[in-house]
This record gives sequence, structure tokens and C-alpha cells, in this order.
Amino acid sequence: MPEAASAPTAPRATIGDSEFDRDTALTLREPGVYDIDLSAGWTIISAVNGGYLLAVLGRALGDALPHSDPFTISAHYLTASQPGPAVVRTDVVRTGRTLSTGQASLFQYDEQGREVERIRVLASYGDLDTLPDDVRTTARPPAFPPMEHCFGPEDGPAPVDGSSAIADRLMLKLDPSTLGWALGRPSGKGEMRAWFGLADGRDADPLSLLLAVDALPPTAFEIGISGWVPTVELTVHVRCRPAPGPLRVSITTRNLAGGFLEEDAEVWDSADRLVAQSRQLARARLS
Amino acid sequence: MPEAASAPTAPRATIGDSEFDRDTALTLREPGVYDIDLSAGWTIISAVNGGYLLAVLGRALGDALPHSDPFTISAHYLTASQPGPAVVRTDVVRTGRTLSTGQASLFQYDEQGREVERIRVLASYGDLDTLPDDVRTTARPPAFPPMEHCFGPEDGPAPVDGSSAIADRLMLKLDPSTLGWALGRPSGKGEMRAWFGLADGRDADPLSLLLAVDALPPTAFEIGISGWVPTVELTVHVRCRPAPGPLRVSITTRNLAGGFLEEDAEVWDSADRLVAQSRQLARARLS
Repeated sequence: MPEAASAPTAPRATIGDSEFDRDTALTLREPGVYDIDLSAGWTIISAVNGGYLLAVLGRALGDALPHSDPFTISAHYLTASQPGPAVVRTDVVRTGRTLSTGQASLFQYDEQGREVERIRVLASYGDLDTLPDDVRTTARPPAFPPMEHCFGPEDGPAPVDGSSAIADRLMLKLDPSTLGWALGRPSGKGEMRAWFGLADGRDADPLSLLLAVDALPPTAFEIGISGWVPTVELTVHVRCRPAPGPLRVSITTRNLAGGFLEEDAEVWDSADRLVAQSRQLARARLS
Repeated sequence: MPEAASAPTAPRATIGDSEFDRDTALTLREPGVYDIDLSAGWTIISAVNGGYLLAVLGRALGDALPHSDPFTISAHYLTASQPGPAVVRTDVVRTGRTLSTGQASLFQYDEQGREVERIRVLASYGDLDTLPDDVRTTARPPAFPPMEHCFGPEDGPAPVDGSSAIADRLMLKLDPSTLGWALGRPSGKGEMRAWFGLADGRDADPLSLLLAVDALPPTAFEIGISGWVPTVELTVHVRCRPAPGPLRVSITTRNLAGGFLEEDAEVWDSADRLVAQSRQLARARLS
């Protein structure tokens, strides 16, 4: 599937001219209000991926606010989105010199054409390129096998449901040590790791990081829980503009209790920079 | 200072009748709108503690929503709050059977009496008592020295600035291994751990957990950064109703870069349950 991965000589899409950019493109209806046709290309079974939806809202806020990069964005998922028409309504909460804060909601329409809110987001934006280079992180990249030792949907037994359209748009190579669930032998550890990219070869940017943190199979699979794990809330911190090349995404769950679990994601770029951190609260049917 | 800690026989305040409850009490102005006089008792130097403010907003949403317990609450801090009059305006975003989502903003007044927004919050509430007991957490409580081997402001050299009113309202006993900064020898590790309670002996509840996650000295102090570390955004997941008794709060920072850092907090109760997880993005002056 991922031409970019299997044939380095294939023409690579670029930031601004790629499937991801076309499918998150918004049409300005009036100041702060944007129309979009949610693509069916980012669905898992029939559900629209939450990271793709967050990227759509993130793009709207980057347009509505004086700053363009999401530094911290929190989304509460209200109702399930469907492919098709949607409207994003933004609200500028506060504009500052280095940070601006905004709010955005994505709505779709019911049978009577009334707006139904799908997601509400609160975010603070800045300019990543103005940040000092001083880095004192003690975080280290997780141990990853080389990409050629990892597995994607095209390597079958499909670790990602083959009926998921999103699989065709991602370059996802899962660490075999987090693939036990796909073989009926979940490790019992709440870990999921994968090399991540876009199938058309588009490099990562702050908006695609919002997709990357929610694009892996649920860690719950490795804990032995199958079925739907809907996101209640997802917060992403973008800490650095990612360097070109594939990303490494590491997700861990430490606390599954009372029918809820957290998913902590770290995204590392090819320059070994921790470019994004996220945490989501999701529901899991304990069984 | 903390009578409850130093004299177990002293009368203990109770949930609903304590300094914390009185200082977060709201007066209903009209449906969804609440007045409050922000107490000077929860200030650090002159700044009102962000966790106290989050608890005020959390209490308002617990009243405005059909569910009473914050499951996940995200706050973006816009402008510095001052002790004194404030108004909280809430908005019910969605009500569901098990979860309801709401938004709230805290405003204060400028010289002309115009409202100035201090904080905006988005949160999903539920009922912790209805959650199944099934716990599959792999998280383990952090290693903590016994409370009598930890140090509070009353044990001087004051690890918490003695001029901070909040110190008189907290039972805070810091792990000596995270106290190097107070002795001019920061460990260089982004860790801060403390036994936490309320000075008047009030037990913890979901609202006081919102205070607990933001009540320790900044981890930046142990990284060798002094001075102000203002919170940009703070998200708290409340995972379990805390058992009576002191809490253990463990905060870690792994990524200080570009003038920002994250603070991840875990709160453990006396029954060894992970009752809350939080992450904040804060600014740090790199020097």
C-alpha cells in the first residue's frame, strides 16, 4: 500500500499538496466559520478517525488565530462524526504576543438539517519557529526495531482491519512486540509502537502530528480487550516542528480501571526530537 | 502548621465543611452563572494557585451539569487571577446518560468593571460511584519515604516559600530526594514528590484532587530553573473517588525544550489506587 515506503523513487506528496492537506482543507463561509466535506478516506470501519477530525479543527484554528501552530489542543468528543458535510465554528478567546487561545466546534447535520455538535476543542497556539533551541529533555526515544522488521496491513495477517480506509492513507509499521493481539496472543502490556508516516510520502508537520497520536490500534488490544475504545477527551502538546522522515509513535496505557483507560502517546522525529506528547481518556468495555 | 498532621486529636474538618469548601463555594446569580470571592488563602506569593482556580470552575460545572464528578477537565489559563470578586459562567455542551460535557469560564473585572476572562475550561463529567470495580492497572505507586521522613514548610529551611498563604492550608510533606533545590543543590531530575492533604484535615474528594495536581513546587526547580513557571494548559483525569487519608502526589517532567515543559502528575490514595492523572504545559524561562 504505502508507495512512499515501498518505492522510494515514487513521487512524494508535499506539505500543502497531499491527501491529508486536501482532506483537511476548509472553505471559509464567513469570518471564523468554515465548511468542509469530511473524507471517507480516514475512517476505521465506519467511524471517522479522531485524529483526522482534530487536524481539521486544528487547521481551522490556525487560520482563525494570529498564531499558526497548535502548542496545546484539547478535544472533547461528543457524538460520532460521519463522512460528509460539516461546519467548523471558531471563537478567538484571547490573542497574546507569543500565545493565542481559541475554541472551535465541529458540527454536522441531522435529518432536519439542524446542526449537531460532534467535537469541541480548546487550544493555545504559538509559533514553533520562534522557540529557543535550548533543549534539556531527559526523555529518550523508545527502543524501536528497524522499520523493515515491523509490520503493516500489507504484510498480513492484517494487524489493522483491512476494511479501514485509513489504512490506505497511512504508512504504519507496527513493532512486532506490540502485535501479539493480531495473532490472538495479546502481551497483556498496554503498549503500542509504530513507525508512522503518510502513505503518499508527505512529511510531518504540526497538523499531521495531531493525526499521528491517534492513528495506532488501541493499546487495549494488547491488554486483551477487543472492540470499540471511543475517545472521550484527547489533549496534544506539539513541542517541536518535526524533521522530514518517518515518525516513531509510542503509546502506553498504565491505568485501565472502571471502564476507562488513558492512552499516553509520544511522537519522535527522525532527528530524535520529542515532537509531540498526548494523552487521551477513552472508554473500554471491560470483559 | 498542619494541625491535622501534627495533632491527630485535633478536630478534623470534613468534606463540605472545610476551608477548601468555604473558599470554593459559589453563589448562584442566575442559571449557570455563579459569583465567588476568590480567597487570598490559596495564593503563592501574589498569584492565585491554578489548582484552586480549577477546583472553583470544577465545582461550578458539577452544579451546572447533571453529573457531579469531573472525569476529564482541561483548563487554558489566559490571564493572572487575583484574590477578590469573580464570576463563573457555565455552558452545558451535551448531556448523556453516563457522561455530560460542559464549558466554564472564570472572569474578573477591570478598572471599568468590564469582565476579563481568566481561565476557560472544557470538561466531561460522570458519576465515579457507578463505575465497575474492575481494575487492571499496571501502574504501581511510586516509592515514597514515610511521611515522618518528609519535609514541610514548618520543618524549615522552608522548601515552600513561607510568604505563600497556600502553605498554611496544605499538609505538604516533600520527599527529601526531590528537595535538593531548596538546599541549592537541584538534582537535575524533573521530579517532585509529596504527601498531600488539607491542613484542616478534610479528606480528599474529586474536587480537591484538582488542587492536589498543581500544589507542589515546580519540577523546574529540581532542573535548576528558578522563578515563575506559569501554566498554559492543565488537564486532569479523575479516575477514582479517593479513600480517606493522605494522598501521594508524584510529578515528573521529561521534556524541557524551547521554553516549555510538561508536568505529569499522578495522585495515589491511601488504598493504593491511582485516583488522578494530570498533565500541564507550562512556560519556563531557560537560563
